[in-house]
Amino acid sequence: MKALVYHGPGRHSWEDVPDPTITDDRDCVVRVDAVTICGTDLHILKGDVPTCAPGTILGHEAVGTITEVGSGVRDRKAGDRVLISCISSCGTCRYCREGSYGQCLGGGGWILGHRINGTQAEQVRVPFADTSTYVLPESVRDEQALLLADILPTSWEVGVRNGDVRAGDTVVIVGAGPIGLAAVMTAQLMGPAAIVVVDKSPARLDAAKRLGATVVVNDGEQARQAVMELTDGLGADTAIEAVGIPETFELCMTLVRPGGHVANVGVHGKPATLHLEDIWIRNLTITTGLVDTKSTPTLLKMVASHQLESSGLITHRFGLGEMMEAYDVFSRPNESDALKVALFREHG
Amino acid sequence: MKALVYHGPGRHSWEDVPDPTITDDRDCVVRVDAVTICGTDLHILKGDVPTCAPGTILGHEAVGTITEVGSGVRDRKAGDRVLISCISSCGTCRYCREGSYGQCLGGGGWILGHRINGTQAEQVRVPFADTSTYVLPESVRDEQALLLADILPTSWEVGVRNGDVRAGDTVVIVGAGPIGLAAVMTAQLMGPAAIVVVDKSPARLDAAKRLGATVVVNDGEQARQAVMELTDGLGADTAIEAVGIPETFELCMTLVRPGGHVANVGVHGKPATLHLEDIWIRNLTITTGLVDTKSTPTLLKMVASHQLESSGLITHRFGLGEMMEAYDVFSRPNESDALKVALFREHG
Amino acid sequence: MKALVYHGPGRHSWEDVPDPTITDDRDCVVRVDAVTICGTDLHILKGDVPTCAPGTILGHEAVGTITEVGSGVRDRKAGDRVLISCISSCGTCRYCREGSYGQCLGGGGWILGHRINGTQAEQVRVPFADTSTYVLPESVRDEQALLLADILPTSWEVGVRNGDVRAGDTVVIVGAGPIGLAAVMTAQLMGPAAIVVVDKSPARLDAAKRLGATVVVNDGEQARQAVMELTDGLGADTAIEAVGIPETFELCMTLVRPGGHVANVGVHGKPATLHLEDIWIRNLTITTGLVDTKSTPTLLKMVASHQLESSGLITHRFGLGEMMEAYDVFSRPNESDALKVALFREHG
Amino acid sequence: MKALVYHGPGRHSWEDVPDPTITDDRDCVVRVDAVTICGTDLHILKGDVPTCAPGTILGHEAVGTITEVGSGVRDRKAGDRVLISCISSCGTCRYCREGSYGQCLGGGGWILGHRINGTQAEQVRVPFADTSTYVLPESVRDEQALLLADILPTSWEVGVRNGDVRAGDTVVIVGAGPIGLAAVMTAQLMGPAAIVVVDKSPARLDAAKRLGATVVVNDGEQARQAVMELTDGLGADTAIEAVGIPETFELCMTLVRPGGHVANVGVHGKPATLHLEDIWIRNLTITTGLVDTKSTPTLLKMVASHQLESSGLITHRFGLGEMMEAYDVFSRPNESDALKVALFREHG
Repeated sequence: MKALVYHGPGRHSWEDVPDPTITDDRDCVVRVDAVTICGTDLHILKGDVPTCAPGTILGHEAVGTITEVGSGVRDRKAGDRVLISCISSCGTCRYCREGSYGQCLGGGGWILGHRINGTQAEQVRVPFADTSTYVLPESVRDEQALLLADILPTSWEVGVRNGDVRAGDTVVIVGAGPIGLAAVMTAQLMGPAAIVVVDKSPARLDAAKRLGATVVVNDGEQARQAVMELTDGLGADTAIEAVGIPETFELCMTLVRPGGHVANVGVHGKPATLHLEDIWIRNLTITTGLVDTKSTPTLLKMVASHQLESSGLITHRFGLGEMMEAYDVFSRPNESDALKVALFREHG
Repeated sequence: MKALVYHGPGRHSWEDVPDPTITDDRDCVVRVDAVTICGTDLHILKGDVPTCAPGTILGHEAVGTITEVGSGVRDRKAGDRVLISCISSCGTCRYCREGSYGQCLGGGGWILGHRINGTQAEQVRVPFADTSTYVLPESVRDEQALLLADILPTSWEVGVRNGDVRAGDTVVIVGAGPIGLAAVMTAQLMGPAAIVVVDKSPARLDAAKRLGATVVVNDGEQARQAVMELTDGLGADTAIEAVGIPETFELCMTLVRPGGHVANVGVHGKPATLHLEDIWIRNLTITTGLVDTKSTPTLLKMVASHQLESSGLITHRFGLGEMMEAYDVFSRPNESDALKVALFREHG
Repeated sequence: MKALVYHGPGRHSWEDVPDPTITDDRDCVVRVDAVTICGTDLHILKGDVPTCAPGTILGHEAVGTITEVGSGVRDRKAGDRVLISCISSCGTCRYCREGSYGQCLGGGGWILGHRINGTQAEQVRVPFADTSTYVLPESVRDEQALLLADILPTSWEVGVRNGDVRAGDTVVIVGAGPIGLAAVMTAQLMGPAAIVVVDKSPARLDAAKRLGATVVVNDGEQARQAVMELTDGLGADTAIEAVGIPETFELCMTLVRPGGHVANVGVHGKPATLHLEDIWIRNLTITTGLVDTKSTPTLLKMVASHQLESSGLITHRFGLGEMMEAYDVFSRPNESDALKVALFREHG
Repeated sequence: MKALVYHGPGRHSWEDVPDPTITDDRDCVVRVDAVTICGTDLHILKGDVPTCAPGTILGHEAVGTITEVGSGVRDRKAGDRVLISCISSCGTCRYCREGSYGQCLGGGGWILGHRINGTQAEQVRVPFADTSTYVLPESVRDEQALLLADILPTSWEVGVRNGDVRAGDTVVIVGAGPIGLAAVMTAQLMGPAAIVVVDKSPARLDAAKRLGATVVVNDGEQARQAVMELTDGLGADTAIEAVGIPETFELCMTLVRPGGHVANVGVHGKPATLHLEDIWIRNLTITTGLVDTKSTPTLLKMVASHQLESSGLITHRFGLGEMMEAYDVFSRPNESDALKVALFREHG
């Protein structure tokens, strides 16, 4: 089959590889019907993720059709149309039993397209099929389900819910890339009174506005002014970091009120400075986290009931064989205005 | 009357000052029967707290007898024996209505011995008497109540409860000064399976052991070993920072398991480094906070029912007039083995 | 002045009474600008509330302008335009300090129009002015604020929040009178996927639909079918009882899934049967409650930001002098199609 | 092998039956080393549990050694010494994924000794071995682990944690049978200030006292007096129902303060009267529940660390072949003073 293989920093190609096979009786093999590319994949290509070995097929988000299941798979069968989650879950370790699948100790966690071959391929082996895939109702199209593989649960769990967003709150989201925009969407599930979004890109701010942001601004100083005006000078209830650099994390820390929350969603490569001399007295809560995808069934229900229109972030569509071109478009968002790109087995 | 007056960095004296008087109709004046000295007072003496102006009477912890109340005081009267809380609460602002008295926007918060004259005196004016003092049951002695003014609610609220300590947990407490030892005491209210305490002072580790610590160790490396052994290599559920320097905060960050909590209690003067590049993926929660003293009524009930023996941290007792000597003893803990010192109007 | 006086079961009149005066230094006197009638007032008229003595002026919901404040009032002054809450709060008792103002032990709770004279009058004395009234922003009109006095916080706190409604949930609301309809409005702040409303009145079901209900049905059997269809036969996550009779409470108990919540909002006059033999094994949570109005500041913020359109429930408007007619219209909803009636000092 | 077979109301015998075998690839077969009898088994014998068919081997609590595992079992192997939980969990259904194993939709829940053959036998087949058994550390003896199969997690989860017992609280436990006594033990993990226990049996009250109860009383009126005295007339924070009849549930409802919790643990056969006309205004929370055994790993850790001495409730010990005699002793507690009886493969 064809797949997108990582060959070390700066090198990737869409090439022939052997078909995947069942290697553990809880595996399934899935034919990929729709797949997307994540900012994390670009990090891998830059060499930022040394745990991803050259030779690995990338990708941890897809929708597909099961073609084969191992003898230990109970609740999935060939022909099932499923969402493949970015997080695999063994289902039996301490963390999986507590709903923290992202921290799975039994061989799961974020492994697809990272420690084992991923979804940017014509087929993919998915471990722990019963607890790592989600059967899709007929009414949900592939494209609608696709963003449930990662960015919607990530933004909701790690940003909105860790950040304890509540009805009536003022929320500031720093960064309007795909994950920040997904946070704009999922924050609204909690009924905040105002959502302020900060980004440098006018196109992304337009998207934020369209998806429900109350105020959009270009930089930290404007963010501070907007937040303080909305909160009588107190600060935001919650700041969501959706960029992944020290500056934006530190900005978040200055935007929240005493008693507020800073929820980090960004993937960071460097340490930040934590001004304990200012914040020790301010009753702040800072959270970090890899997604658990515990919320996936709920999000899926909301997509099926049209409460959440998840495909609104997809700006570019390709055939699966156009993978290299899709990577190119996705990696140059300033020129392409790309948010999320989607690739389909059957396209056009 | 006599009082301990701060005269700028390095200078303090026990001297004659005017008696306090009611200046707002919600004030009361209290005759001080028992008072203590806080590590924060030493910070002020070092010049670390510029918001405390020279000329201020220090002290924010005391037990006393009300001698006069303003016309707007409803539930206190002359003769009431009361605990004076380190936190004053206006009772009507947004934060006070939510139980976050430490963040009071109506003129309260930590003001005694900081922004207004404090309790290290023969008498003290206490603002918002109804919501900033606690009437003591007869069965509770002055000495038992004294530590409820600050370190017991601080350690419980900001350390143990913010740190989400639960039955069966492994907790590590970094720093065994008064506040760390109070955390050893109050952590046990939540039923943890193991409490590891780190400090360099053998005397303080002895105290920790006596108060209920499971394991006591001398440094970070030993702490790490002890914690990993107790948790099959996962890390502690909660780390409580009770020192207030970057090194100990950063140590705490390395001792907790994925999904764990770091609760900062220490008063910090410098920033720390936050290794987001390591922790973004580990589902950590970091909290900071000034005490709210919301738990004071509950702690008082527990002292009255002998569930909590609060006076166990007092190592040295003085008459009120021996204030300068008490400061001397308290500021040299390595030599004096002092934990908390208490001064009494009637002594000896 | 004129006021609506209760003279025992079945007897009330709009009559001359003495003007109210300050009797405690924390009181204020308010000129009533807008007032409404509550279903509870009808209960009193029927003789169902023996704690309300004949001679009492009724009413516990109003918006007005302060004309006088007691010497102990701190944060309110003559001329302030305020919301008068149905719950008075002393601000200092144990329950008030915890945010449970409805259970105030210091002389507050539900007293207006119940144990002391109420708001259906040209003027009203309001105890504990600082903690029992809310200053209105200019942008919020009297009519918008009026329903924040009782039914919006009641439906949100006692129905939606006690019932733990969450994003993606299926909620069933039994009863579409004013409080049930307010629950339809406030439930949406939590992002449920589906809201099923049960009532016999087509007009009320129309109102429910207009306010955001997903499915409206006529009786319990249809409710059961609708809920089971929406939940694959499991049952609703939350059932909100908004009628106040045994039959509707018992219906709620049969509509929730294992692990679900039944939140009782209705005012009951008789016991219900609790089928412990069925539910002991089903992990249910049942809550009851008088409103605390702790959420009033948040709701007010949401009205000001147009997140909540609170005046949508007002169907009939009167001048204050038309009180008897307003009572007549409100007490015959089947004929008048009245939901909430509002009376204004300046009308027409 | 030998097993205790239920032959319809009033009839049971210790008799020869076929050995159990693996029937599903996630099963294991366990040699029973220690087993106990539950009050629920007596209910079955009385005919109160029609879902338990004649011919079923009873028993849902045991410790044993795995002799065989199915091909789909991952983390258990022959020779493992395990706790067999009263709750089987499929590990993949919605409820299991949320930690509500007791409500398992995938074929688990309370099935052992109820819908399939149970543990009162020389061997037992346990479905879903990976997620329904717990490997025991060497340091924990069979007898210590035995009560973790049901009554300790039941009392902790359904009584103490559902009842939201907190440090400083006053708790009343109605019923001092095995489950009520287990609640006395596990309540202490949360640090309550006072535990009041009500029962008619002096022997059981002695046991309650020994296990940590603060006050023990004989009847409801004395309970009311004790609770009101401890709480200044307010009522208990939490009442735990551990009997299972309407009278004791209704007693619990009268013992809690406004804002309090009633946690039902008892197995009920009849409806109770719920006095909504009294409680609608009192902010009460009532919970019911079958245990999930989600807390079992934590409880096991606490037994291993000697934080919990779980075998303290065992009053009588037998060999496995003395099953009929053990039933006899256990079913006449007033004469035998039996709390829990334990039967061992190797005894005496």
